[in-house]
Amino acid sequence: MIKTKATGPIPSGFHALDGELALGGQRAGALVAEHGSPLFVYSRSRLDDRMMQLRAAMPDRLDLHYAMKANPFPPLLRHMVGLADGIDIASGGELQMALAAGAAPDHVSFAGPGKRDEELQQAIQAGVTINIESPGECDRALKIGAALEKQPRLAIRVNPDFDLKGSGMKMGGGAKPFGMDIELVAPVVKQILEAGAEWRGFHIFAGSQALSADAIIETQAQTLDLAGRLAIEIGEAPAHVNLGGGFGIPYFPGDEPLDIGKVGNALSDQLTRLPSILSSTQFAIELGRYLVGEAGVYLTRIIDRKQSQGQTFLVTDGGLHHQLAASGNFGTVVRRNYPAAIASKFSEEPTETVSIVGCLCTPLDRLSDNAAMPEATVGDIVAVFCAGAYGASASPANFLGQGPATELLVD
Amino acid sequence: MIKTKATGPIPSGFHALDGELALGGQRAGALVAEHGSPLFVYSRSRLDDRMMQLRAAMPDRLDLHYAMKANPFPPLLRHMVGLADGIDIASGGELQMALAAGAAPDHVSFAGPGKRDEELQQAIQAGVTINIESPGECDRALKIGAALEKQPRLAIRVNPDFDLKGSGMKMGGGAKPFGMDIELVAPVVKQILEAGAEWRGFHIFAGSQALSADAIIETQAQTLDLAGRLAIEIGEAPAHVNLGGGFGIPYFPGDEPLDIGKVGNALSDQLTRLPSILSSTQFAIELGRYLVGEAGVYLTRIIDRKQSQGQTFLVTDGGLHHQLAASGNFGTVVRRNYPAAIASKFSEEPTETVSIVGCLCTPLDRLSDNAAMPEATVGDIVAVFCAGAYGASASPANFLGQGPATELLVD
Repeated sequence: MIKTKATGPIPSGFHALDGELALGGQRAGALVAEHGSPLFVYSRSRLDDRMMQLRAAMPDRLDLHYAMKANPFPPLLRHMVGLADGIDIASGGELQMALAAGAAPDHVSFAGPGKRDEELQQAIQAGVTINIESPGECDRALKIGAALEKQPRLAIRVNPDFDLKGSGMKMGGGAKPFGMDIELVAPVVKQILEAGAEWRGFHIFAGSQALSADAIIETQAQTLDLAGRLAIEIGEAPAHVNLGGGFGIPYFPGDEPLDIGKVGNALSDQLTRLPSILSSTQFAIELGRYLVGEAGVYLTRIIDRKQSQGQTFLVTDGGLHHQLAASGNFGTVVRRNYPAAIASKFSEEPTETVSIVGCLCTPLDRLSDNAAMPEATVGDIVAVFCAGAYGASASPANFLGQGPATELLVD
Repeated sequence: MIKTKATGPIPSGFHALDGELALGGQRAGALVAEHGSPLFVYSRSRLDDRMMQLRAAMPDRLDLHYAMKANPFPPLLRHMVGLADGIDIASGGELQMALAAGAAPDHVSFAGPGKRDEELQQAIQAGVTINIESPGECDRALKIGAALEKQPRLAIRVNPDFDLKGSGMKMGGGAKPFGMDIELVAPVVKQILEAGAEWRGFHIFAGSQALSADAIIETQAQTLDLAGRLAIEIGEAPAHVNLGGGFGIPYFPGDEPLDIGKVGNALSDQLTRLPSILSSTQFAIELGRYLVGEAGVYLTRIIDRKQSQGQTFLVTDGGLHHQLAASGNFGTVVRRNYPAAIASKFSEEPTETVSIVGCLCTPLDRLSDNAAMPEATVGDIVAVFCAGAYGASASPANFLGQGPATELLVD
């Protein structure tokens, strides 16, 4: 008897239509029949709902930015440009995509520890804000601005002296390649001001993928405190402070959704108790995964159903080349099962324990280990949920000669 | 004081030219100046030498196949088609690439647990050998062959009842999605013979990336024994037996190169003691990483040198989008340092401890943690060794809007 392993919680709001998983009002099978398999399906209404809920929960004063690294699929990005107050980019390539999607340059900011000269040049020319990550990068940006005869818009990315507790990825609280240590900030801001460039404020990012409201509240309080202290040290008000992100989504068994109401209430309260130097500062948070992760589903067709030593394997035409993180090979130490289902039998109860694998000829290509599923066979369709962020663009699409999956934005 | 972490052993045979790492007789800096950064450089002479050493060590009777999943870069693949006795593919995409590189269809074999009907059709049409991985796949192949009025060439991939001890990836010795359990083999071969298709023999792959000659010798003995037992059960001699691969290369501190002389001697001896039913069988091993891994170097330019809390970071214009495995995010539980060097100061002794990171805005993007290096600054070039296998094609090239690195085959 095989011990069943739990799968992660399917995000709320998915329903069946004629027994199949429905996406944008269409059956999974119909979508695959029309667009092929494997297929990423992103739901516009889920994107809208998530942003609406977030706006309702967060203080009015807070801008909501989309970190496009989570999902740069052009139709989705265009939609997010319409929903979000700003777009955060991480490369010259993302700058081109953001501008092509209609983002206004003065609502775009560019972070990343390794910006090439050409990327700084493109960013300055476009007029987007550059989050400066080191004194050396500041020198380069000012020099390139001078050569272009265009003053750059520069914020300082700060390496905070705290981290986001319980976060999937810590980006502060120690020696880091991101941003600059606190004691470097004031001198570099003074250098920017003396050069006549536009100082845009601070970017302070302490971690990502946290599900604890208390941890995020604590980090946001520390971030506001740090921004206030730095502003006082500099003696000038920052126009803008990006408080980072950190809002996680449930992927694994036992994960509970983040309580954004609690985070929003605490942040509203914190914003009423700011030092006066921050009284007219514009605040923002930047979210990627939280905004788009649960809006996406990865559909992949079952090619083979086979037995080996008493275990059942469903072999699909997808795999880690599109779903690196779900396979357990990206930023996780112990592999756990993402939420998954037999999309073509979404109304049925589980009756057997199966392992769902991808088509690649490597034991790394696992989508769901020993999961409880309704009986499925060749031609049925598997759904992997939470596929809207860090899926298609964060996976090695060309591995083993496979190529990318089709992506689709539906209602 | 930061504790230095060792880096993996640089493969033998790399030398300096005017103080810089030389590749194909050219300085690393000259290659980057001409072809850009980041850059994968593969050395033809290292490919030739490796194959020559392997042929000298292995029995004459053994064919040496190249598993192109390790590196499908077209010029390298063309070169390997000329060197190897066969090409092993894992998808319809790889089939197209292999044929385009000049591989003869009767020296190509196709393995993989999830072959789509279209891929089976392409393979049958081209006349390549298909390693059948399940009874269901056999049914599909025979049906497609009948529809095409062309008899397929089918080998059986066996899920062995043993694994390769100490291997980086086990592909036998338990319930697996690869191949079919032993008791299914004879009935499926009989089905193939009765259908009038060409039965090509067995494919038995027990694991990969082993550095222990004894472990490989033991696995090869078990594989030959299994092939003999299966042939006797079937009552027919297999034309061909693919003994799998498993030959590893040193990546990490303390790893020692595989003793291929010892493996070759043992295999020669084993081949003299075969059961008579295997007396005219053609044997092959299939190697990917072992043939091409050490022939490749990844070069990436330093964009920034920065301090954080007493640690020094070198930020490069490359990263995990080209070097997923070196970053510690592909098939490894604990991250260890690949072999790396400052290519532009290859003759210099280490004088400091630095962490080398990629340009991506994620803490996952690490190329070398706390490594001892000569002092390097902006413009210097980092080399990551063992970059010839599972590098460019096994990494998420488009992550964060980056795009693929240039690849180059040099003398």
